Amino acid sequence: MAKKPKQLADLFHDSLKDIYFAERKILTTLPKLVKAAQNEDLKAAFEKHHTETEGQMERLEKVFQIIGEKPQGKTCPAINGLAEEGAEIIEEYKGSPAVDAGLLAAAQAVEHYEIARYGTMIAWAKQLGMSDAATLLQQTLDQEYGADRHLTNLAEGRLNREAA
Amino acid sequence: MAKKPKQLADLFHDSLKDIYFAERKILTTLPKLVKAAQNEDLKAAFEKHHTETEGQMERLEKVFQIIGEKPQGKTCPAINGLAEEGAEIIEEYKGSPAVDAGLLAAAQAVEHYEIARYGTMIAWAKQLGMSDAATLLQQTLDQEYGADRHLTNLAEGRLNREAA
Repeated sequence: MAKKPKQLADLFHDSLKDIYFAERKILTTLPKLVKAAQNEDLKAAFEKHHTETEGQMERLEKVFQIIGEKPQGKTCPAINGLAEEGAEIIEEYKGSPAVDAGLLAAAQAVEHYEIARYGTMIAWAKQLGMSDAATLLQQTLDQEYGADRHLTNLAEGRLNREAA
Repeated sequence: MAKKPKQLADLFHDSLKDIYFAERKILTTLPKLVKAAQNEDLKAAFEKHHTETEGQMERLEKVFQIIGEKPQGKTCPAINGLAEEGAEIIEEYKGSPAVDAGLLAAAQAVEHYEIARYGTMIAWAKQLGMSDAATLLQQTLDQEYGADRHLTNLAEGRLNREAA
């Protein structure tokens, strides 16, 4: 029997595993950013996002339940690359006045990856008629936008001036 | 003599090399997406963005000139990871009705990476008093937003319905 071609539902499941892996990676990376950051507001922003990320993982687990699958991650090369860039900043700018600007930029690149992924998955969930999943994913997307805006406000405030 | 700590200007230069590498990678990846896409509108969108990317590289070369540096890339693990995700979609969804939805999502993740990076670099350019560089980078950022919106319109139109 010929293998059935993969459909949007498979793509949704694959992406769910990808973002679940990514959120877990973010959960282990954020404490390193907290430690490396100099500015207290930036430290607090990373800590807040760590708490949010825990809730985001729980929502993903609910979405796995909705599609009748076990929560399971799948290596996400993009988040690994993004995390590597953050690690490079820590290594190369440790102790420099520019370290916070670099960490903040690395974190925003991660936020944007999540914004892209959640935006896509919400569209697919709606297309697949899973409005409950779409609602859960939308709650997370709203948090990601909030986190990104908060980082932009910090960047445009003190941090860039301090680094210059 | 102690090594001078790295400053925002160094961070700007490092990020310029990072995004220059990323744009070159995008330039070599887009033709693969054009080939793999089934939908003609999506093929056309990737082709259009290929042309835009050539102009974006030229703008980056002008920014290198502004800061008195030679145009030079620096391995960007994030874009390599993002490109790998696109290659996985091509491999796993080739011939499937969902391939276009997957390619489109991969391309939007790349757009968002660029949006994050250019947004950051514009803020840094302004902070460093380089308004000409900021203007050039803003032109590219506007194109990236445009490309992302165009992909969203395609996604919300026919593609997701076809894939379901």
